[in-house]
Amino acid sequence: MDGRYTDCAASMKEKPLSSLCTPALVVDVDKVKRNALRMIERCQNLGVQLRPHMKTHKTLECADIMTGGSRRCIVVSTLAEACFYADHGFDDILYAYSLPLDKVERCADLSERLDLFQILLDHPQALDELKKRPLRDGRLWHVWLKLDCGNGRAGVLHSQPEAISLAQAIVGTKGVELTGVYAHCGNSYNCRGVEQIQAVAQETTDLTLQFMEKLKASGITCKSSIGSTPSCSHPVKDMGKLSEVHPGNYGFYDVQQSVIGSCTLEEVAVKVLTRVIGHCPHRNQLLIDCGWCGLRLLSMTQEHGRVEPISGPLDYSKFPLGSLLTLIPYHSCATAVMHPVYHVHSEGRLLGKWIPTRGW
Amino acid sequence: MDGRYTDCAASMKEKPLSSLCTPALVVDVDKVKRNALRMIERCQNLGVQLRPHMKTHKTLECADIMTGGSRRCIVVSTLAEACFYADHGFDDILYAYSLPLDKVERCADLSERLDLFQILLDHPQALDELKKRPLRDGRLWHVWLKLDCGNGRAGVLHSQPEAISLAQAIVGTKGVELTGVYAHCGNSYNCRGVEQIQAVAQETTDLTLQFMEKLKASGITCKSSIGSTPSCSHPVKDMGKLSEVHPGNYGFYDVQQSVIGSCTLEEVAVKVLTRVIGHCPHRNQLLIDCGWCGLRLLSMTQEHGRVEPISGPLDYSKFPLGSLLTLIPYHSCATAVMHPVYHVHSEGRLLGKWIPTRGW
Repeated sequence: MDGRYTDCAASMKEKPLSSLCTPALVVDVDKVKRNALRMIERCQNLGVQLRPHMKTHKTLECADIMTGGSRRCIVVSTLAEACFYADHGFDDILYAYSLPLDKVERCADLSERLDLFQILLDHPQALDELKKRPLRDGRLWHVWLKLDCGNGRAGVLHSQPEAISLAQAIVGTKGVELTGVYAHCGNSYNCRGVEQIQAVAQETTDLTLQFMEKLKASGITCKSSIGSTPSCSHPVKDMGKLSEVHPGNYGFYDVQQSVIGSCTLEEVAVKVLTRVIGHCPHRNQLLIDCGWCGLRLLSMTQEHGRVEPISGPLDYSKFPLGSLLTLIPYHSCATAVMHPVYHVHSEGRLLGKWIPTRGW
Repeated sequence: MDGRYTDCAASMKEKPLSSLCTPALVVDVDKVKRNALRMIERCQNLGVQLRPHMKTHKTLECADIMTGGSRRCIVVSTLAEACFYADHGFDDILYAYSLPLDKVERCADLSERLDLFQILLDHPQALDELKKRPLRDGRLWHVWLKLDCGNGRAGVLHSQPEAISLAQAIVGTKGVELTGVYAHCGNSYNCRGVEQIQAVAQETTDLTLQFMEKLKASGITCKSSIGSTPSCSHPVKDMGKLSEVHPGNYGFYDVQQSVIGSCTLEEVAVKVLTRVIGHCPHRNQLLIDCGWCGLRLLSMTQEHGRVEPISGPLDYSKFPLGSLLTLIPYHSCATAVMHPVYHVHSEGRLLGKWIPTRGW
């Protein structure tokens, strides 16, 4: 990985974290590697293909770690991410977002440029748009059908007849291939503990496999994929019957995942460094240089955070101005998106910077 | 302004807003100009210097509009903003953020580079750091004292003896000048209606002017400044006795400001365009392509928003996939920071893009 850290000013290299100006998002690369390796091994043991999601970090370096260096078989949530990865030699990219009709032409470009660019849809109207834009050179639109197995966000509800008829319509459309069925068990975010997580994982797996049986009965075979960081951190055996899983947050993890039971707090690889910038003895508070542009925690405004003790008066002599505090993000996707740069370290020594992509 | 719109692809120019891919932050430049001109006139009528705050938009183009093209006399909330504006020919910049001790050297650089770079502090420890870094060529540190007049965030409490003694310490420090006293009436954000806004404006003005009298009694004279968008949208006459005011949000305004009473909804210059990407008849919902990466409204996740009717069943035929919806941000500072590009239009025809600065 060393060759990649070209953005790091030579003067910053190997310096301690305390040399950073704050607020700063810091990534423990050893933890990222451990989290990624554990997920790779877990999927190998299950016998299921891992397709890691890039939405949490949106960087090349973390994508390399999560794909084991292959730069193949990833999921993205924005077209900006898809283009960013395609421009840097990644392929076999699934844009797992209900096809937005204003972006069909850009999706066609990527489909014609890459070996394997895949899209997702859950409405016949989106299929109609694909018909209007056949791909060049006899290429096929590779389409995943988004299934809602109880998550309640995007997707055709698994129990509705429209789900099967949309799959049939995809199969019956010239120039379009039904690549797979995709479900996101985001309802696992309401779980507390392994037992509840595995109950949701089991239910989503069962509903997806039942749907695959119904498809098979009507003569259709294709891949299947489910995923969320909780369910893939504690997979059930039947997930081995699926073709793929697509978790994403696990590279970083966060406080929310530790509360759900996906990880321990020690496994969280990302933190926000902040410094004390004010003493407010008349309110028994410290002021820190990290507001909601850095993290959502206690009371925050754009560039200020208020920190209070749990009980008793604050001993300000223990926190002189400039004192470094470390915050663990509640939701690392939301925190990371606020930072134009991530500072990467190993055992507290800075290695360089990762620059995420932004926008849609 | 036309020469500035170099980022705009020729093909996009003068196209309607509906040609944009979504989600997209769109800025009505005519409204920005009207909002800015009204604030300039209001301050001229009061006889007070306007020092507009850049934190909401963080762009060169909006700064030009708010300074009437002078590129002088602005406030910023991050050092990243200060450098961005300094690099583009702006001067007389006040970095109105309790001096972070990790950034003293970068502040010294700006103080030595610009005609007038000004900082702010509220703790003797910060003054000690300035003593350790005298400026070159006999230049002075231009320091504003941050006063808390009831807002309860940063600043020395106006009633504490420490406030006067810190002012005296600044004056008594070689190489440092007490430029002014700075108070932010952020407590005006709790107001509803002009009467309440003006009560807070009056109280902050009174407390600041009383503090200036105390300073004068101890032989110290310097500038004074208060500000917030609510108080400067409905100023009280006594604000004319201050040297400066420093509102910022008023260039864009937002729903929150309309609820407070600073503006009407029609005066809000910024909106988020989003498209329908899904129909969820089993939940009586639409799915839109704008999540909390775009705006906080109803139920949102990273890249999805859920839209429900106020009552009754949704008529989906009125909202085919791809339908354009317009959302007015609750807090434009928080919404704008999510967007790497602002799309600028006049009467619905695109003029180009504004690119904000990011980071700290």
